[in-house]
Amino acid sequence: MKKLKRSGRLVEMTQYLLKRPHSLIPLTTFADRYHSAKSSISEDLAIIKEVFQDEGLGELQTMAGAAGGVRYIPRAPKEQSLGFIQEICRELEQPDRILPGGYMFMSDLLGRPATVSEIGKVFASVFSERQADVVMTVETKGIPLAYATGVYLNLPVVIVRRDHSATEGSAVSINYVSGSTKRMSTMSLGRRSLKEGARVLIIDDFMRAGGTIQGMMDLLAEFQAEVAGVGVFLESSDTDEHLVDDYVSLAQITGIDARSKQATVIPGNYFTNTEGR
Amino acid sequence: MKKLKRSGRLVEMTQYLLKRPHSLIPLTTFADRYHSAKSSISEDLAIIKEVFQDEGLGELQTMAGAAGGVRYIPRAPKEQSLGFIQEICRELEQPDRILPGGYMFMSDLLGRPATVSEIGKVFASVFSERQADVVMTVETKGIPLAYATGVYLNLPVVIVRRDHSATEGSAVSINYVSGSTKRMSTMSLGRRSLKEGARVLIIDDFMRAGGTIQGMMDLLAEFQAEVAGVGVFLESSDTDEHLVDDYVSLAQITGIDARSKQATVIPGNYFTNTEGR
Repeated sequence: MKKLKRSGRLVEMTQYLLKRPHSLIPLTTFADRYHSAKSSISEDLAIIKEVFQDEGLGELQTMAGAAGGVRYIPRAPKEQSLGFIQEICRELEQPDRILPGGYMFMSDLLGRPATVSEIGKVFASVFSERQADVVMTVETKGIPLAYATGVYLNLPVVIVRRDHSATEGSAVSINYVSGSTKRMSTMSLGRRSLKEGARVLIIDDFMRAGGTIQGMMDLLAEFQAEVAGVGVFLESSDTDEHLVDDYVSLAQITGIDARSKQATVIPGNYFTNTEGR
Repeated sequence: MKKLKRSGRLVEMTQYLLKRPHSLIPLTTFADRYHSAKSSISEDLAIIKEVFQDEGLGELQTMAGAAGGVRYIPRAPKEQSLGFIQEICRELEQPDRILPGGYMFMSDLLGRPATVSEIGKVFASVFSERQADVVMTVETKGIPLAYATGVYLNLPVVIVRRDHSATEGSAVSINYVSGSTKRMSTMSLGRRSLKEGARVLIIDDFMRAGGTIQGMMDLLAEFQAEVAGVGVFLESSDTDEHLVDDYVSLAQITGIDARSKQATVIPGNYFTNTEGR
C-alpha cells in the first residue's frame, strides 16, 4: 500500500477498524501498512478514538507494550439505543401488524438492513463482555439478527434447523414443546457446527413462553456447550408460563387485542432492568 | 454535533458514508452536521474518494448543483474478488466437506460474518446497476448472503418460506420441483412482502439444476414482480438439466466424487464470462 498522509490514514484506519470489531490490531500493522512511524499512528488513533466516543460508535481500546495494539469494541450508548427502540415500538403498534393468533407481522422491519444492523449493534453492546465463541439462532426470522450481532462481535453464527437438512451432514436433533402452542416440534444442529465447551450466545426474534429458546438450550447441553447469554428482540408477556428466566429483551408486547387490532409495545427488560445485566 | 476539525470530520464522514451506501447525501447535511463550509466538506470528500478508490472500497459519486451531494457505491474490484473467491474455492475442496448425495458442507463458511459480508459486497458490485428494489432469497442458508447483499445495496430483504408461517399473514404459495431431486416442494411469500411491479434481485447460496431459483421466479410472477438479477454463491455443474440460464455465480463445483471425497471448485461465471454482465 502506498504511503499515506494523516488525512488519508484517518480515512483508511477508520474503515479498517470498523470492519474488524473485537480484533486486536498491533500498531505495527498500521505502521507497516502506511509506512508511518508508530508515534504518528498513535496520534491518528487518538483522533479516531475521540470521534468514535463522541458519536456513540463504541470504544477504541489501546493496549501499550510489545503485545499491544488497538481493538474496536462497538458499543451503542443505552440512551441512543432506547430512542431507536422507542421508534420501533411505535412502528410495531400500527394496527395492521396484528395477525390471527396474536402474532405480530414484523418481517418488513426485520428485512431492513439498517434496522437489523442497529439491533445487532445493541445486542453486541449488551453481550460484549460475555466471552461468547459463537452466536446461535433457529431459522428463520432470527437469522438476520444473529448475523448482524455476529458482525459486531466478530463471532461466527450457527443456525439451528427445524428439519434435518441433507446439507449439514450428521446432526443432533431434539424435540421441544412450544410453550404457547403446546405443539411438539423438532430442531437439529449439524454435529460439526459447534465445538464441545463452546460458549454460545442465543439470539432470536421473538419469545413468548420461551419453548424455542429452551429447546436451543437443551440442544446446547447435547453438545456440552454453555449458554453465554440469551437475547430476544421482542418478547410477548401474554402468557403466565415462563420457561426461560435469564434473557435480555429489547422490546416487549404488553397487550395485544386481535379484535380491536390494538397492541402496546414498550422497550424490553434491557432498558427497564436497573441491575445492568 | 460539535464542531469538528478536518481530522475529526474525515473519521466521522467515513463511518457515515460506509453506513449509508447507495444513499444520496446532500453536502448541506455534512456542512450542518459539522458546522463547516461546503468548500471544506468538498475537500474532505475528495480525500475520502481517493482512499476509497485506492483501497477498492468503492466509488464516491459526487453530484454538483442544488440537488447535488455525494453517494457511496460499494464496489469490489474484480481482481480483488477473484483472489477472495479462489481462497474460498480451496477451502471448499477440503475432502471432509463432501456429504452423501454430492452435497457440500459449507455452513461454517456461510456462518463467518467477514466472509458473508465480502460475498455480499461482491454481489452488490455485480448488481449495483440493476435498479433492484428488493433482495429476495429462500430460507435457510441464503439468508445471510441476501442480507449482506442488502446491506451494501441499501435494499430490503424478503425471505421466501418453505412452509407457510403464521407470522407472515396471508401468503401466496407455489409448488416447485427441485430439478436434481425431482421432489415436489412448496414455497410461500407473505402478500405484504412484495409490492406489485417490484424489481427483485434473487440471491441464493447454492444452485444445481435451478429448480429453487425457478420456483422463486414463478413466485415473482404471481406478484407481478420482475427479476432484476439472479446471483448464486456456488453452482454445481453435475447435471445436464438447466432450468435457469441467466444468473451470476461466484464459484462452481466442476466435479465431485463422494467415494474418493474429491471435489473441484473453481471461480464461477462472474469471473469467466468476458461479456461483463
